[in-house]
Amino acid sequence: MKIAALGEDAVVAVLTRGLPVGGDVRRGAGDDCAIIGGPRDRVWRLLKTDCVVEGVHFSAREKPARIGWKALCRAVSDIAAMGGLPRHALITIAVARNVKFAWLRGLYAGLRKAARRFGVSIVGGETSRSPAPAFISVALTGEVERARCVTRSGGSVGDFLYVTGRLGGSLAGGHLDFVPRLAEARWLAEHFRIRAMMDISDGLAADLPRLAKASGCGFEICEEDIPRNRGCTVAQALGDGEDFELLFAVHPRDAARLETKWRAQFPKLALTKIGSLTRGAVRAKRKPNTRGFDHFA
Amino acid sequence: MKIAALGEDAVVAVLTRGLPVGGDVRRGAGDDCAIIGGPRDRVWRLLKTDCVVEGVHFSAREKPARIGWKALCRAVSDIAAMGGLPRHALITIAVARNVKFAWLRGLYAGLRKAARRFGVSIVGGETSRSPAPAFISVALTGEVERARCVTRSGGSVGDFLYVTGRLGGSLAGGHLDFVPRLAEARWLAEHFRIRAMMDISDGLAADLPRLAKASGCGFEICEEDIPRNRGCTVAQALGDGEDFELLFAVHPRDAARLETKWRAQFPKLALTKIGSLTRGAVRAKRKPNTRGFDHFA
Repeated sequence: MKIAALGEDAVVAVLTRGLPVGGDVRRGAGDDCAIIGGPRDRVWRLLKTDCVVEGVHFSAREKPARIGWKALCRAVSDIAAMGGLPRHALITIAVARNVKFAWLRGLYAGLRKAARRFGVSIVGGETSRSPAPAFISVALTGEVERARCVTRSGGSVGDFLYVTGRLGGSLAGGHLDFVPRLAEARWLAEHFRIRAMMDISDGLAADLPRLAKASGCGFEICEEDIPRNRGCTVAQALGDGEDFELLFAVHPRDAARLETKWRAQFPKLALTKIGSLTRGAVRAKRKPNTRGFDHFA
Repeated sequence: MKIAALGEDAVVAVLTRGLPVGGDVRRGAGDDCAIIGGPRDRVWRLLKTDCVVEGVHFSAREKPARIGWKALCRAVSDIAAMGGLPRHALITIAVARNVKFAWLRGLYAGLRKAARRFGVSIVGGETSRSPAPAFISVALTGEVERARCVTRSGGSVGDFLYVTGRLGGSLAGGHLDFVPRLAEARWLAEHFRIRAMMDISDGLAADLPRLAKASGCGFEICEEDIPRNRGCTVAQALGDGEDFELLFAVHPRDAARLETKWRAQFPKLALTKIGSLTRGAVRAKRKPNTRGFDHFA
């Protein structure tokens, strides 16, 4: 069977099933990051790798600094989604032998800029030859206080679902310049009991079912409520992906305080309640409305 | 300028120069692994990424389990070369959409086998599409007691140079089945003051100058003393690479005890003194003998 027919989630789920893990692994494959630490340690370590591939995540004509920025920021976004702070990065690059050195310098300029902005130490780099497209893999460590660590799986039936910012239209260029919601996620983890959180990388239509499933819930959203970027259709907001906004669940009793404090703290960034977690079989995917097309199928 | 004209070391050196690093970074780019920890912490953390690319490090016709084994063992070898123990791995894979799922399962079978053998927890996996060759990147963490941590840079003039095993001929297939010298490196770090160490991945002719340069020394070796695999020429032993044997330096006063104890501990694995570190400008590369061809140029 070809992997395209299975889907990425199914592939990774089968491949990583039953992997041998030590007693200090709090969370392995299946969340935004792996979590390492003793059950009572005050601080847990986070591990994440992420890659961008020429022709898939960026075009060969893009400015290399934007590619470097994106490569690191994608991983920072995953650390943020756990409530954590990024710490150390290693960069693995495979490029064709005829790539110009200036291109690599540009790439590193973008990596450096992102590293400075988000407090990351780049502690290693490796380059390899590749027969064809450029491939950049970022391995990033992070830290999070155990009490503030947020996974995808802590949501409960009735929790309200929120997204930050606006969705859709990343393909027009935003996917290369996005700012990971690190400050916002840390603020949320410090001031609220966030029950489940992830970053929206594959689009709400793909990522919301993952969060709901991990929490053992279904979900219900109103498509009209999804905050869209200017000129975007609902379908784009649901499906474009690479928004790198936060999707999270909170208990309804925290909703009013959250919305008030958010407006004071981040007056320029929208926070939108899009729906709630519902009872439902783990695999249930509720049709969000009756527009005749189920984006969540 | 094309990167092929510069060489990998120069490229990485320029790219990683002056990177912003935090106060807990004991060693960044430039050694087998990055070292993280406070100057007085009892245990330091090690970080390493390494990648294998189809058409460069393996052929598309190879059994995928052998490729998975190699991908993880390369990184284990780097952790070993610091005197450390590997802990947690994340696996990033980019493959064409028409790759068969059975191929990925085979790859993971090799990864799992290596993980079990060397006590590694695989805590995350990611797959991405690639327009062309398969690309597998391994991010591996490790730990080493500060007192046992061995870098490339601690060698001194007069130190004896040793290599484990036999060199050359990896291209015949050994590069896919090699066993990282984890047990041997730990034993060395526990029982001796190893002044500098690295694993031989690019061939002795490329790697020995790196160790000498990092230690601020030149070197002197006798090519006839290099332990070769059956049927290999000296040129192959120096240049084939992917031996994944250990290269290390010890003070001459430790040499006799080392050789005696090694024979008792690892009777089946050769340990060979190949030369010594010498006075010399950091960039000096001594011509090792007068065969008329300087492999170290």
